[in-house]
Amino acid sequence: MTSNQLDLIGDSHLKSLVVSAKEAASWIKNGMTLGLSGFTRAGDAKAVPFALVDRAKSESLKVNIYTGASLGSNVDKAMAEAGMVHKRIPFQADSIMRKKINDGQMLFVDQHLSHMAESIRANVLNKIDYAIVEAISISDDGLIIPTTSIGNSSIFVEKADRIIIELNTAQPRELKGVHDIYEPGEHGERKPIFLTRVEDRIGKTGIPYDINRVAGIVFTHQEDSPSTIAPPDNETALMANHLLSFLRQEVAAGRLTKKLAPLQSGIGTVANAVLYGLMNSEFTDLEIYSEVLQDAVFDLLDTGKVRFASGCSITLSEAKMKKVYSSFQLYKDRIVLRPQEISNHPEIIRRLGLIAINTALEADIYGNVNSTHVRGTHMMNGIGGSGDFARNARLAIFVTKSIAKNGHVSSIVPFVSHVDHTEHDVDVLVTEYGYADLRGLSPIERVHLIVENCAHPMYRKPLRDYFNEAVMNGGHTPHILEKALSWHVHYEKNGTMVQSQNLAKTK
Amino acid sequence: MTSNQLDLIGDSHLKSLVVSAKEAASWIKNGMTLGLSGFTRAGDAKAVPFALVDRAKSESLKVNIYTGASLGSNVDKAMAEAGMVHKRIPFQADSIMRKKINDGQMLFVDQHLSHMAESIRANVLNKIDYAIVEAISISDDGLIIPTTSIGNSSIFVEKADRIIIELNTAQPRELKGVHDIYEPGEHGERKPIFLTRVEDRIGKTGIPYDINRVAGIVFTHQEDSPSTIAPPDNETALMANHLLSFLRQEVAAGRLTKKLAPLQSGIGTVANAVLYGLMNSEFTDLEIYSEVLQDAVFDLLDTGKVRFASGCSITLSEAKMKKVYSSFQLYKDRIVLRPQEISNHPEIIRRLGLIAINTALEADIYGNVNSTHVRGTHMMNGIGGSGDFARNARLAIFVTKSIAKNGHVSSIVPFVSHVDHTEHDVDVLVTEYGYADLRGLSPIERVHLIVENCAHPMYRKPLRDYFNEAVMNGGHTPHILEKALSWHVHYEKNGTMVQSQNLAKTK
Repeated sequence: MTSNQLDLIGDSHLKSLVVSAKEAASWIKNGMTLGLSGFTRAGDAKAVPFALVDRAKSESLKVNIYTGASLGSNVDKAMAEAGMVHKRIPFQADSIMRKKINDGQMLFVDQHLSHMAESIRANVLNKIDYAIVEAISISDDGLIIPTTSIGNSSIFVEKADRIIIELNTAQPRELKGVHDIYEPGEHGERKPIFLTRVEDRIGKTGIPYDINRVAGIVFTHQEDSPSTIAPPDNETALMANHLLSFLRQEVAAGRLTKKLAPLQSGIGTVANAVLYGLMNSEFTDLEIYSEVLQDAVFDLLDTGKVRFASGCSITLSEAKMKKVYSSFQLYKDRIVLRPQEISNHPEIIRRLGLIAINTALEADIYGNVNSTHVRGTHMMNGIGGSGDFARNARLAIFVTKSIAKNGHVSSIVPFVSHVDHTEHDVDVLVTEYGYADLRGLSPIERVHLIVENCAHPMYRKPLRDYFNEAVMNGGHTPHILEKALSWHVHYEKNGTMVQSQNLAKTK
Repeated sequence: MTSNQLDLIGDSHLKSLVVSAKEAASWIKNGMTLGLSGFTRAGDAKAVPFALVDRAKSESLKVNIYTGASLGSNVDKAMAEAGMVHKRIPFQADSIMRKKINDGQMLFVDQHLSHMAESIRANVLNKIDYAIVEAISISDDGLIIPTTSIGNSSIFVEKADRIIIELNTAQPRELKGVHDIYEPGEHGERKPIFLTRVEDRIGKTGIPYDINRVAGIVFTHQEDSPSTIAPPDNETALMANHLLSFLRQEVAAGRLTKKLAPLQSGIGTVANAVLYGLMNSEFTDLEIYSEVLQDAVFDLLDTGKVRFASGCSITLSEAKMKKVYSSFQLYKDRIVLRPQEISNHPEIIRRLGLIAINTALEADIYGNVNSTHVRGTHMMNGIGGSGDFARNARLAIFVTKSIAKNGHVSSIVPFVSHVDHTEHDVDVLVTEYGYADLRGLSPIERVHLIVENCAHPMYRKPLRDYFNEAVMNGGHTPHILEKALSWHVHYEKNGTMVQSQNLAKTK
């Protein structure tokens, strides 16, 4: 390391703790629990995990991995391939890790992102042996300055037995000052969280830490993985337009103004398209209170459409990363990064009255949403923050393309194969065909809107047929239980949900 | 009316508005929306609804009925029988109304109890034409003093075009001072809610109102319906014991003290049994932050086990009602009644770190809970506040007897027929056989605990068989979709979930 690098460490005792990633990884014992920084491919610990992966190739090593959300830099992939993860909490989005989870080779707890810090604080989960968190520097006044995400890093640092800091010199130092670390404290002693506007800073600019628990400092020089979010296509652009039509209806009804309300949007292509849809809209002076600040958010900041954006991580494409960090002074006073416990906190979500936009895998004719399980059994990524937001937001909007697998899968089904968001929490459903505003409607009233506005035309008649048959049996939420999951079963057997009228009738 | 009665009305203009229930009911037009006071049989408007029922016998009259929760005094029954309800929100618990809902003769929106005031404030639901709220008096300083519940009365009075007040001289005047009415205000202008201890008073002792919108005042003299909660039986007592064992484990692990944490318990026999279970326990200095203050809460106040109880209504048996109100000075400074938006507010629930105890109809082997729909289709009562509490509490506990219908129904099933509480929100499941602590466990890890600790012994092998077959198909949450709902289907066809091994294996 160079003396320039050592300048990133304020304290002289800490300077003596600089080690290699390999050495730091050697301290970790089989069966331990690690708390890694990282949230949606941003700000992940990069070096020590890979050194652990190396170790796992030649020895029996299994650890529990707690994170903010998904990790980038192929960390999740490499750890999964190495078979070194016993249990992962609370989210992942890697194809190899997903396969290991679904094959029963590793355990996964799919937890609301705002709940994890509470679980750790309450000693419900395993004690964390090592927090391994990425930082841009360690300040003289005793704070670890995180990089491009905060996630659960502050609670990991607070509660872990030992702390390893990865000082990543490739991460932009301009980020210093963007973070706002707030700790709600123990139950029974809590005060209100004094955050009443998206831009409010309520905490410290870095993570307080106990110097005696710092085990080592590792220097790294590696940029975050670029985001993999696809640009809008025809269908996602249509969905964005329908969503804007809905928001216009809300303005026309006097329920919103052109400034809308603080926006949360899940990660992914559709959410990105929605944000881009705002670009050329009449909406203005927008505010973001979300998890991930992705490309579109910075474009919206550029054009002035968005006045302020609060998030938990910054996850950008390669080109956008270069642009943003080479002119970071344009953004620095207009963004803030918070721990995921605060970005997703029910108290704040309810108080600010967010408009929450999240992605569904499938929805049923009554408005129940599956966000996580392919055909009810196989984990995709996890519920993430969608439950934190949907339950507590002013408006809980779910978006999905009406079909998948070239039309062989309908995203609107008689009965969802797994429920992450109940009928009580789904206000508006949007597909490329239109939107269904479900607020204030009984289950039977919702069916027509969902089927006729949101389902793909090829699946509308079968959905109507199902409902018309079900309603003969009576009930507040009519179903034919023998057939409720028959579309999924048909897909499993035949590779398609399309079935002849006969097949549909016989079961 | 007597001059004594008129003393209950401070303002002389208001005194001129006294009318009969029949006259007040005559103002209500077909198609209107009414906001009625009342929460779990307490504090319901009693006279005007019955006068409306009389009208509905001889003319075509349909109205939307918004309430706090369920009404007593046979109001729900009479309105349902008269066929005068077009749409009901957000909860009901009457057998006749339930039948009408399930027969498709009236619409019902099953809404989180804390969400209704938000829906009204945001003009998402119909404009309320008349708020009809029960009161013990109207104070000189411009407040309507409610009776035994608050429910949604304050938001109804704030937002309704016109207000009708039922002054019920049979309700105990001693209640004055017990209410704490707080209005969070519009989104975008909200401050934190400064409630950090269960006993904090943050609002007014009555409901502020616009005198120009008061249409009429009706005198009534009728006590609340007594509660219908059965005393603990063997099984509910066992469940209470298991729940206490779980709480003891938490104390032993250092996660709770003997003061536990503020308790919420749903209405009903099991919750009541759990509260009685605390009576002879070592737990002490308890606090209640709940919806309904039922018999057991006052017994616990009597013995000093509970130091303070916050609720939204007081719902008592006949004997307890007499006792409590004849010695109300013993309780007055140790209870507070709040609007249901505050008793169930996510901000407060999360801040205080509640232990939430609610009832499940059925749960599946992975911990998803159905609280509302019998066999997935027929509405029982509604989700009530259970979603407000379970999502945001420190501990979300669900209780259910392991079987129903003399053993022909297992409350633990392979796949719940409706989901109100997802696997993400269910911490602990309790039956008369034991408890399953599901925190920090992956779906597959939960199965063994739920089946072996909670299911009825007669259903354990079939549940194991289902899981063992399902797990062969892989997946994070293994299922055999063809058989997932087969237990419910079997019950529908044969009146029992008990099936021969052969039946279970075929189809």
